[in-house]
Amino acid sequence: MEGKKSQEGLTVKKNENFSEWFTQVTEKAEILDSRLGIKGFVIMRPWGALTMENMFMHLEKELQKNGHKPTFMPTVIPKENLTKESEHIEGFTPQVFWLKDINEGQELALRPTSETVYTPMFKLWIRSWRDLPLKLYQRANVFRLDTKATRPLIRAREFIWIECHDAFKSKEDAEKQVQEDIAVTEKIMHQTFGIPFLPMKRPEWDKFAGAEYTVGSDCFMPDGKLIQQPSTHLMGQKFSKAFGADFENEDGKKEFLWTTAYGPAVSRILVSVISTHGDDSGLVLPYSITPTQVVIVPIFTVKNKEKVLEKAKEIYSKLKKMGIRTELDEDTEKRPGEKYHMWELKGVPFRIEFGEKELEKKELTLFTRDTKEKLKIKDGDLKNIPKLGLEFDRRLVEKADKVFKGKISLGKTEKEIKKILDEGKVAKVNFCSTDNDGLNCAHLVEKKFGAEVRGTLANSNEKGSGNCPFCNKPAKKVVYIGRSY
Amino acid sequence: MEGKKSQEGLTVKKNENFSEWFTQVTEKAEILDSRLGIKGFVIMRPWGALTMENMFMHLEKELQKNGHKPTFMPTVIPKENLTKESEHIEGFTPQVFWLKDINEGQELALRPTSETVYTPMFKLWIRSWRDLPLKLYQRANVFRLDTKATRPLIRAREFIWIECHDAFKSKEDAEKQVQEDIAVTEKIMHQTFGIPFLPMKRPEWDKFAGAEYTVGSDCFMPDGKLIQQPSTHLMGQKFSKAFGADFENEDGKKEFLWTTAYGPAVSRILVSVISTHGDDSGLVLPYSITPTQVVIVPIFTVKNKEKVLEKAKEIYSKLKKMGIRTELDEDTEKRPGEKYHMWELKGVPFRIEFGEKELEKKELTLFTRDTKEKLKIKDGDLKNIPKLGLEFDRRLVEKADKVFKGKISLGKTEKEIKKILDEGKVAKVNFCSTDNDGLNCAHLVEKKFGAEVRGTLANSNEKGSGNCPFCNKPAKKVVYIGRSY
Repeated sequence: MEGKKSQEGLTVKKNENFSEWFTQVTEKAEILDSRLGIKGFVIMRPWGALTMENMFMHLEKELQKNGHKPTFMPTVIPKENLTKESEHIEGFTPQVFWLKDINEGQELALRPTSETVYTPMFKLWIRSWRDLPLKLYQRANVFRLDTKATRPLIRAREFIWIECHDAFKSKEDAEKQVQEDIAVTEKIMHQTFGIPFLPMKRPEWDKFAGAEYTVGSDCFMPDGKLIQQPSTHLMGQKFSKAFGADFENEDGKKEFLWTTAYGPAVSRILVSVISTHGDDSGLVLPYSITPTQVVIVPIFTVKNKEKVLEKAKEIYSKLKKMGIRTELDEDTEKRPGEKYHMWELKGVPFRIEFGEKELEKKELTLFTRDTKEKLKIKDGDLKNIPKLGLEFDRRLVEKADKVFKGKISLGKTEKEIKKILDEGKVAKVNFCSTDNDGLNCAHLVEKKFGAEVRGTLANSNEKGSGNCPFCNKPAKKVVYIGRSY
Repeated sequence: MEGKKSQEGLTVKKNENFSEWFTQVTEKAEILDSRLGIKGFVIMRPWGALTMENMFMHLEKELQKNGHKPTFMPTVIPKENLTKESEHIEGFTPQVFWLKDINEGQELALRPTSETVYTPMFKLWIRSWRDLPLKLYQRANVFRLDTKATRPLIRAREFIWIECHDAFKSKEDAEKQVQEDIAVTEKIMHQTFGIPFLPMKRPEWDKFAGAEYTVGSDCFMPDGKLIQQPSTHLMGQKFSKAFGADFENEDGKKEFLWTTAYGPAVSRILVSVISTHGDDSGLVLPYSITPTQVVIVPIFTVKNKEKVLEKAKEIYSKLKKMGIRTELDEDTEKRPGEKYHMWELKGVPFRIEFGEKELEKKELTLFTRDTKEKLKIKDGDLKNIPKLGLEFDRRLVEKADKVFKGKISLGKTEKEIKKILDEGKVAKVNFCSTDNDGLNCAHLVEKKFGAEVRGTLANSNEKGSGNCPFCNKPAKKVVYIGRSY
């Protein structure tokens, strides 16, 4: 167990100072370390890295099931590629790290995202509609020289994500992919990791540089601010036209590819996992992604150590055989209380405790992290752990959903909207327009409330009614207004 | 199936023009694509990426079993870190890509390897011998602005590897780790991927910049040249002294950490997998790592398509349920012959073929890629596929071992050594010294034969006898001399 120093408890409460709570919990639970001192770059320690590995596993399994195949693309992108699509380069250039060394006459940037390498390859790989759809992804690090202040994991200059780049023969197929991407976010981020979200079709003025439209997943942080999680983009034919990536359609005619991109940033989703489920004792990690699902803490003295440890090892083997990620805490330096404390800080769902007395009664104590309940169980009950794990995750989802639902309120007037925002909620508002003619009202929202028009629901068809509270024109849309990270 | 264009057969034989064979097989079997045109950077296509994913899985599982834990470290390294250990910086500086943009006053390089970020963190994470050993790794991309000519996968400016960085309380423990690293290479690269190697303790003049000593794994390419695969380094206390990374030992005294590093480069090991097992029809991928272990190719006409496909799907489900990576080739555009050809090019170990006639006889044809044998089997025999897979891999190992053994010959005189090298072999030679006093003779070897003294066997204790054929001094060592990539 590395880093003893950091295993002190949290000194703040989550609902009193969320920002400090987040800093403490990520450091003390050994999720990350930012002491290397490179602005915007962070070290993920084993506890954080293992959690991320499990998150990747769930995401990649689902993506592969839906026909995505992995690739590895270069970390660098030549300037001539990056500048090919005009809106894209305008949006990304200020954010790009350039390499000092010229590589055989080429100026190279660290990839901020990889549309400009996938699209020219689509041109080479796809000849006709028979080669479509082509659905590729990579697990990759990307780099954004963001000018704003950085915060570990939340606003980083390097982050670790999955980027999917797909090509289709029609706009219809591409739009279906956008919906499939939202469904993947729903299945994995929401149902598996327990993070509810609003799939927001962004207003015209807030879409990805080079996209026809963007759907961002907005999640709540405990302070009521929104954080954008996976976004999916209908690129339409913008990139394919820029790179001349065409194909022969079913009528034998040349047509440009229809492309989409989807980018679940695992290092950023981890922020929501930590923030949504954690409590004043530390992390609460979903059973599905925690590095350790069950920790066994035997209580022994010098005298009965052998006997107690023998039983602990028996339980350990039993759980391991069931495929449960189990750890046995044999440390002889720490008292049981210290151990309990540490494993609670680290968010392990279940802890099995027992000493000699319980051994004689053939009893074990099962501690459950989220409810903090202690239950007496028998050896035979260990077979229920996987079922209890599913229930554990179900509780986390339900609790998060309940909070989430309470955070969205209808705001009809400026006064109501302000009140909703000041309560740390999101206002659902009938709004004039999310095309560029709505930009004036969006500026008002920003000026008056320090908030943003996040968009319209992307997977339902909410229709505006009445008038826009800002310009009084007929409200064509229902938008969600919130403050964000 | 993307990239139809590239699915033509190979136009060269492996033993006639290995270099061209390698280029063709990696492109036509859709392992990689270098047409993006960034010198030293390559795209791994799904067939290559999936193979690499399986290779990572085997390696990481073994490393974790031995107590290694994953981390994610920044892709960039501050100049002040990189320059802290003098030998290290001397060895690596010319190879480093620097970023143009200064990050808050810091000059940053793309990591060529990560000793200089792990060691300062060891200093923070480790307080006493109780925190040791600490064994960490990361799956990462690294960058080397090598000045020599580049070749896809073989000599690249970006490669994808695992780097392990471990800290110990004594030199003895660190040296045990070096042997464990060699054992991991033996278990995974040799026994699982089928690549035999010579674990070479490099001569003093050829060790890693900053190491006490280096053990490189030398493997044969079909043209008789050696390629270095995983290397493991005893850093000793060089990096820990440079970064002031000390700990309290069991006597309560401050001491510097003993560190090691081990770097299996998966994208480079793939070169050996392709080169060692492939033949004139294309790739032959080990059952353990191939993306597809069994491909089903049903032979149908318009008339009996439904009936034949029904059976194919039944077999597919059966194999899938057994956990076998199976693909069903339902393509209606290609003739069975074309399909056979393509799956052989891609190196899939087993192919199941059948048409209506075989359906009636309740027979299937099983084609095995390495032996090219076709066997009639019954439905019930499908349960033997996993066993046949193990035998398949066993055959690959045995065949590779046989070739490997024939490639090492004892050379007593300069004339003998030259003959051995010209036959595309490695000469085993009694040699004066692998300390710096042997450098003169090593220069002679290079000048006379264009070959290198690769080192001494790291996991056995071969003793030199007689005199060095170059300087005639007593031979203290048995070295291996070969030409290399």
